[in-house]
Amino acid sequence: MVVELISVGTELLLGNIVNTNAQYLAQKCAELGLSVYYQSCVGDNAKRLEDTIRLALSRSDVVILGGGLGPTEDDITKETAAAVFETELKEDAHTRQRIEAYFEKNKEIPENNWKQAQVPAGAKVLDNDNGTAPGLIMEKGEKTLILLPGPPNELIPMFQESVIPYLKGRCSDAIVSAMIKSCGIGESKVAAMLNDIIEEQTNPTIATYAKTGEVDIRVTASAPTEKEAKKLVRPVVEKIKSRLKDAVFTTEEDVTLEEEVVRLLNKYELTLATAESCTGGLLGGRLVNVPGVSDVYKAGFITYSNKAKRKYLDVSKNTLKKYGAVSKETAKEMAKGGVFQTDADICIAVTGLAGPGGATKEKPVGLVYIACYIGDKVQVKEYHFKGNRNKIREQTVVRALDTVRRCILDKYHETARK
Amino acid sequence: MVVELISVGTELLLGNIVNTNAQYLAQKCAELGLSVYYQSCVGDNAKRLEDTIRLALSRSDVVILGGGLGPTEDDITKETAAAVFETELKEDAHTRQRIEAYFEKNKEIPENNWKQAQVPAGAKVLDNDNGTAPGLIMEKGEKTLILLPGPPNELIPMFQESVIPYLKGRCSDAIVSAMIKSCGIGESKVAAMLNDIIEEQTNPTIATYAKTGEVDIRVTASAPTEKEAKKLVRPVVEKIKSRLKDAVFTTEEDVTLEEEVVRLLNKYELTLATAESCTGGLLGGRLVNVPGVSDVYKAGFITYSNKAKRKYLDVSKNTLKKYGAVSKETAKEMAKGGVFQTDADICIAVTGLAGPGGATKEKPVGLVYIACYIGDKVQVKEYHFKGNRNKIREQTVVRALDTVRRCILDKYHETARK
Repeated sequence: MVVELISVGTELLLGNIVNTNAQYLAQKCAELGLSVYYQSCVGDNAKRLEDTIRLALSRSDVVILGGGLGPTEDDITKETAAAVFETELKEDAHTRQRIEAYFEKNKEIPENNWKQAQVPAGAKVLDNDNGTAPGLIMEKGEKTLILLPGPPNELIPMFQESVIPYLKGRCSDAIVSAMIKSCGIGESKVAAMLNDIIEEQTNPTIATYAKTGEVDIRVTASAPTEKEAKKLVRPVVEKIKSRLKDAVFTTEEDVTLEEEVVRLLNKYELTLATAESCTGGLLGGRLVNVPGVSDVYKAGFITYSNKAKRKYLDVSKNTLKKYGAVSKETAKEMAKGGVFQTDADICIAVTGLAGPGGATKEKPVGLVYIACYIGDKVQVKEYHFKGNRNKIREQTVVRALDTVRRCILDKYHETARK
Repeated sequence: MVVELISVGTELLLGNIVNTNAQYLAQKCAELGLSVYYQSCVGDNAKRLEDTIRLALSRSDVVILGGGLGPTEDDITKETAAAVFETELKEDAHTRQRIEAYFEKNKEIPENNWKQAQVPAGAKVLDNDNGTAPGLIMEKGEKTLILLPGPPNELIPMFQESVIPYLKGRCSDAIVSAMIKSCGIGESKVAAMLNDIIEEQTNPTIATYAKTGEVDIRVTASAPTEKEAKKLVRPVVEKIKSRLKDAVFTTEEDVTLEEEVVRLLNKYELTLATAESCTGGLLGGRLVNVPGVSDVYKAGFITYSNKAKRKYLDVSKNTLKKYGAVSKETAKEMAKGGVFQTDADICIAVTGLAGPGGATKEKPVGLVYIACYIGDKVQVKEYHFKGNRNKIREQTVVRALDTVRRCILDKYHETARK
C-alpha cells in the first residue's frame, strides 16, 4: 500500500513553522510497513490544493492530509476533498454534540465553529479529544483520503488512536515492531556492527535512527498474525542486543535516557548531584524532564566561571592554574566537590570547550571532560565532539547521562559478582 | 517570481529527520519577497525525481532542490536535473581543485568523490566551504534550477552567500527587510496591537513569527533602489516599536534574548546568579549559549528538591511548610538566597508546577513564580503557562530572561530620571 502526505497551510510555505507533522506521519508509516514516495506542502488555495490532491490520488492508494480543517473561511481542506470525491457536506449530529460539549467549559461557541460539524456524506468521522475539528476518512473505489487537523497536539493523538488501527485493518498482514535504543556508539559504527544482520533480513526490516548522541534501531516484521510477526521480531532483537551489549539502554518505546538513569537511581536507592561548566545547566534540565526526579536529584551547580568552581565545588586554585578549567584534573575535583557539597552518592561533572572562541593547539573546540564520582572512586574520560557550540553541548549532556548509567551498572554488576 | 522547493532524500520520506531546510528556504524566500506555492519531498529515485522536477518547472520560475548531491551512486539530483535540461555533465577544473584542497587535510580522497567535480555544461558553480559537493545554478529559457547540498551546515551558508545575491540580482527591485523581536506579549495580542498597521500596508509587508515566549516581526519593502526600500521600512519599524514599547528587546537580526540580557549585564557592569527549581538548569543553559558569559554569570543553583532550596538558597523551613515550594514567598527567598550565596548583583529565581502530576485546585499545572532580586529589592510575579511539561518550562525560561532584562532597564531608567 502506497501512502502520500500533503501538508496544508500558508504558515509552512512562508517558513513560519517547521513541518514536524510530516516527519511524524512518515515515521509512523514506515513503522507500519507502508511506502511513502512523495510528501508535499500547499497553501489554503482551492485550485492548487485540488490539483495536489488529484495528483496524489493518481499515484498513491492513501493520501493523508494535515491542516486546513479550522473554523475560518481560509480552511478549505474538507471542502476541496469533498469536491474531488464529488460528495456533499452534511451536518454530523455527533460532531455537533461534541463541539457543544467542548465549548461548554469555555461558555461561548463562535458561530463559525458549526462549520466543523459539516462532514462529507459517507465519511468516517474521527473524534478530536484536543480540539473541535473532527478527522475524516473518505473512501472512493480503491482510493482513500484521510483528513487530520494541523496542530500536532491534535494530529498526533488522533493518528495514534484512530488512524493506525484503520491502516492496520486495511493491511492484510499484522505488523509488529520493536525498538532498541543505544547510546555511546556512533551511527556509522552501529550500522557496521549490524550490517550483516541488516543485509540478510527482509522480514523483519531493520532501520537505524540517529539522534544527538543516541542511535535507535527499529525492527519491523509483518506476518499473517500478530503472534507470528512477534516471533519473527524477537530473535532479531536479541541478536542486536547481544551485539551492542551495554550500549543498549532500553527496549521500551517511550523510555528516554534520562528516565532510564532515574530508574536506576531509584532501583539502587542512589542520589545524584550535577556539576556543570560548558553545559551550563542543560544536564540538570534533562534530568528534570523526569517527573518526580526530586527524590534522587539532590542538587546541581552551574559553575561556568573559575571562581564558582572554586567556591561551590572546592576545585583548588592550583589545579585551575596548572591544568586549566578544561582538564581531567578539574573535572575530577568538580565531581568530588559536588559529592562533598551535597552528600549525594554520585556526582557527574562536565567541563569543556564548546567554542567558538577559546581554543588552543592543545585544547581544541569540542574537547570535553566528563567525570563521575561514585562509591569513593572518580573516573574521568576525554571526548572530542564535533559541531557548533550547541551540538557540542548536547552531545556532552547525552554522554554525561550515559556515564551515570554505565557507572551504576558497573558498580552493581561487580558487587553482584563478588 | 514564483519559487518552488524540492527536498530530495529517502531519510525525509522515512521520517528519520525533520525537514528544517524547507523551513529555512521558505523563510528566506518570503524575506526576499518571492512567492512559494508548493514544496515537495521525493526520494533518490530517477523517475519520481524527474517527474517532480518537470512538474515544478511547469508551474514555477525557479526551482530550488536540496539534497542528493553526495558522492554515492544513490545521489542523482545533478544527473536528473541535467537530463531534464538536456545538458551533458563535464568536469569542472575549479571544483576538482577545491575537492583536492578539501581532502588535503584529511589525506585520502575516496574515488567516488570525483563524481562531485562533474557539473552540467553551462551551469554556474557555487563553492561549498563546508563540504565537497558544489552547488549549481542552471538556467534554460525562462526557467532556473538551483541545486544545493542537503546537510543544513552546507546548504545554509551556500544559500546565504551565493544564492541570495543571485536571486536579488534576478529581481528588478531591491528588497530590504528589518526585524523587530519582542518578548512578554502573546502573538494574538501583538497582532491585535499592530492590526491597523498590518492592514494598511502593502509595501512594506509585515509578518509576525511566534516562537516560545517571543514574537518576531519582519518588515519587508521592495523599491527600485535599496535606499528607497530602506526609506519605506524605517517609519514602519519606528511605528511598531512605539506601539510595543519595552516589549521590543532588539531590532538586530541575529541577537537572541539571552545575548541582549548579557549585553545589558556587561553594559551596567552587573553580575547575575540563577536559582532554578522547575526549569532544572535550562535557564542557566540558555545563558551559557552566549560565549564569554562567565564574566557576568556568577553561578547557578539547581534546587529541585525542598532540601536543596533550604541548604543552598537558605529558604526557610517555615516558608516551605506554610506556603509550599511553588509560592511567591519561596521564589522571593530563593532569589535573596542566590544573591547572598554568590554576592551577585542580581539573582533570578523560578519555581513552578510543570506537571503532569502534583496539581491541586489552588495550584494548577502551569503555575510559575519568577522572582528577581536587584539592588536590595525583590519583585515576584505569578504566571499561568499552558502546554505540556516541556512547553511550560520553555516559557518559564524565556520569561525569566525577560524579567532580568526589564528589571535592569527599570533600575537604570529610574536612576537616569532622578
